[in-house]
Amino acid sequence: MEHHLEHTVALLSRTPAALHALLLELPETWTLRNEGENTWSVFDVVGHLIHGERNDWMPRVQTILQFGETRAFDPFDRWAQQRESQGKSLGQLLDEFARLRSKNLAELDALDLGREQLDLRGRHPGLGTVTLSQLLATWAAHDLTHLHQISRIMAQQYREGVGPWSRYLGVLQCAGHSAP
Amino acid sequence: MEHHLEHTVALLSRTPAALHALLLELPETWTLRNEGENTWSVFDVVGHLIHGERNDWMPRVQTILQFGETRAFDPFDRWAQQRESQGKSLGQLLDEFARLRSKNLAELDALDLGREQLDLRGRHPGLGTVTLSQLLATWAAHDLTHLHQISRIMAQQYREGVGPWSRYLGVLQCAGHSAP
Repeated sequence: MEHHLEHTVALLSRTPAALHALLLELPETWTLRNEGENTWSVFDVVGHLIHGERNDWMPRVQTILQFGETRAFDPFDRWAQQRESQGKSLGQLLDEFARLRSKNLAELDALDLGREQLDLRGRHPGLGTVTLSQLLATWAAHDLTHLHQISRIMAQQYREGVGPWSRYLGVLQCAGHSAP
Repeated sequence: MEHHLEHTVALLSRTPAALHALLLELPETWTLRNEGENTWSVFDVVGHLIHGERNDWMPRVQTILQFGETRAFDPFDRWAQQRESQGKSLGQLLDEFARLRSKNLAELDALDLGREQLDLRGRHPGLGTVTLSQLLATWAAHDLTHLHQISRIMAQQYREGVGPWSRYLGVLQCAGHSAP
């Protein structure tokens, strides 16, 4: 399927409100527990999404537009949120994510990208050549991979509670963990 | 972890608004496509959640309270939504889900279930003996398994679009499909 920028933006613009509706003031049983050593809680995931809004998506769009393949993207720090989220509440993180996403989508809109620009190429430090279109599609799919992760982290907290039903619940059989 | 009814209710009460925020008026690329033969679209999943509100969760609570283990739960029709969702829009389904969930949570609250009742046993047609506590925990985990599924169905629509990034996106490696 071809990538349509308006479909990507439609999803990107909805994620903050969806997370807000799902997570705000939810008991900490759901939001502060993780899946075991070296895994993330829901709180960590929201911090990671914020870090991406600041350091990943729009900065990489700008790198492609300014440098093409001549300059690789800066690597992304997958544990930055442990530092950056300290002392904040989940409500503060959700608000910060919404604010940054809104600002980034306004900047994206102002670029008024056409087909020709979407085909521009950049260089990912690990993956090699990628296109601007692929970067933008990945921004949306990255929201989905973390919504997928959030639902799995939360479901794990009820693995014992559901008793024999655990075998019927697909989320408890998920092996779709993000690469480290 | 022990099952806490108030944690379960906190999650159950948020799911309709989260789905509304994520899905309302989203392009049909995201909501009407499925993952291949004999799989569901997001539209199908919301129909399935509605069917559960009508026919699964609170009716099974009542079966346990009235009959204990002497009467098995009615089996659940996993394809009922194909019939029941016909001619409706996703917006109508989201509203119907929210209305039914709200009504069911009011009925649950009115039961004022205590520890003793949560330990009551019922009989699942496939799983055998289960407790009322496990049934209620499963209601919440079932929301999560379908949020997990929705994020995966949507991400699949971008499998090609993300190009080489597909290997970094955990959701595209998910093998956590619900049992048929």
